[in-house]
Amino acid sequence: MNGNTPVSSKRSVFFVSDGTGITAETLGRSLLTQFEGILFQKTRLPFVDNPEKARMAVERINLAAQGDSMRPLVFSTLINREVRDIVARSNGLVIEFFDTFTGTLEAELGVGASRVTGRSHGIGSYDAYTARIGALNFALNNDDGATTRNYAMADVIITGVSRCGKTPTSLYLALQYGIHAANYPITEEDLGTSRLPTALQPYRDKLFGLTIDPERLQQIRSERRPDSRYATLTQCRMEVAAVEEIYAREHVRFLNTTTMSVEEIAASIILQAGLKRRL
Amino acid sequence: MNGNTPVSSKRSVFFVSDGTGITAETLGRSLLTQFEGILFQKTRLPFVDNPEKARMAVERINLAAQGDSMRPLVFSTLINREVRDIVARSNGLVIEFFDTFTGTLEAELGVGASRVTGRSHGIGSYDAYTARIGALNFALNNDDGATTRNYAMADVIITGVSRCGKTPTSLYLALQYGIHAANYPITEEDLGTSRLPTALQPYRDKLFGLTIDPERLQQIRSERRPDSRYATLTQCRMEVAAVEEIYAREHVRFLNTTTMSVEEIAASIILQAGLKRRL
Repeated sequence: MNGNTPVSSKRSVFFVSDGTGITAETLGRSLLTQFEGILFQKTRLPFVDNPEKARMAVERINLAAQGDSMRPLVFSTLINREVRDIVARSNGLVIEFFDTFTGTLEAELGVGASRVTGRSHGIGSYDAYTARIGALNFALNNDDGATTRNYAMADVIITGVSRCGKTPTSLYLALQYGIHAANYPITEEDLGTSRLPTALQPYRDKLFGLTIDPERLQQIRSERRPDSRYATLTQCRMEVAAVEEIYAREHVRFLNTTTMSVEEIAASIILQAGLKRRL
Repeated sequence: MNGNTPVSSKRSVFFVSDGTGITAETLGRSLLTQFEGILFQKTRLPFVDNPEKARMAVERINLAAQGDSMRPLVFSTLINREVRDIVARSNGLVIEFFDTFTGTLEAELGVGASRVTGRSHGIGSYDAYTARIGALNFALNNDDGATTRNYAMADVIITGVSRCGKTPTSLYLALQYGIHAANYPITEEDLGTSRLPTALQPYRDKLFGLTIDPERLQQIRSERRPDSRYATLTQCRMEVAAVEEIYAREHVRFLNTTTMSVEEIAASIILQAGLKRRL
């Protein structure tokens, strides 16, 4: 121990929850995006719902504290007071989300919090589960123009050239919001006429177009089918220009997905198309 | 106004964000699950990233305050100080997430927050985007036993009888965590022998089984194919008993999904199988 002891340069972070840990992790990660240049070693500790598991969590936190020679950050969403008090006595900096805000909300709403665990990402009701799986099946069955006969039942029909983000967006809308999203690829054959493909014409009001910078499209397509004509910059430029011409001519709302995450594309479509979540 | 004015019994709730609103909504919804018996009218106001949009958000909040004769709850994750200050002066009870915790973290980490907006659910890097889409394609291409030739590349192979939650779980693992999840349905033909299907035998260490109460399975199957043999309680009981026998005999880890959300199934599999998120 003469100054040569290697000191970890990573800050340990724990997300501790009595449920899935999704809330603790979402909130913690959001805060950490504001701190650049620091390496974080993240660990999720879900289903910490009794004192024994709380003590095991504390052991892991304290071990990290010792190894790092720095206090770990602990983001926690624990409802049960006994469990919470055990974790609070760990050697981490404990940021307790529910505890921080529950008092304010109790005062405002004039009732006490129920303090039932595992609610945030639990099953809710069987009806909600059914709605969600129904939406997911809808997205899967109506992916990539597989069939167009269910479009009357769609909340939105996402369209665009191959590999601009249609499928991930449709599945995300289904899983997170229960929205019925179909998607239809505009292919080279559709692009000659500068008109909407016939299958889409009756559903203009449900259409939402995606576009993407040709350079980025080329990158994505090259990962999938390297050295194909499909992945050339010339082809990507031609398709993107043609699809944007259709959007303009046919007054289809659209957005450019080049720098957007699936979450951002989904949130933008919901906002711009005025969709309602079904979950 | 002689006491007969109808007063809205719903409390308005706004999730205000300069990005997708996912963090604000996750926080707010999690907290609200602790208050039962109160009806909440929830509205997401995403992409509030300049003073003009902030003033429009305040207008909507104040309108609700007037209509409800109650203060709306406002869960906000605004980074920009000017935007935040405008929203803070609305007639709602504003719960500001970043503002509450940023100071504590700055002090602990010894650096200032970068205060860059839209980070939490942005695209991150193109590499992360590619990993995510790769995982999603893997789940789609290896859904429902479509092919077994990619199983060597799977992080996990989810198995179980038809309609126990395999497909939604696989897609969720891909979209949220970049995990490569295949899934393989155990069908009636596989159930005669009490052994693992041949295709799965080389991949025991990657297997994760799902099971479900026969009564719930019958409900789910009846929504899909009413009055079929597939949806009878007898059939569901037989399949579930047989698949659980296989799990026991072949030492396959498994969990019962009857009362679990997709998030809980995914979190449990990650924990029990020791999977690493790739995003």
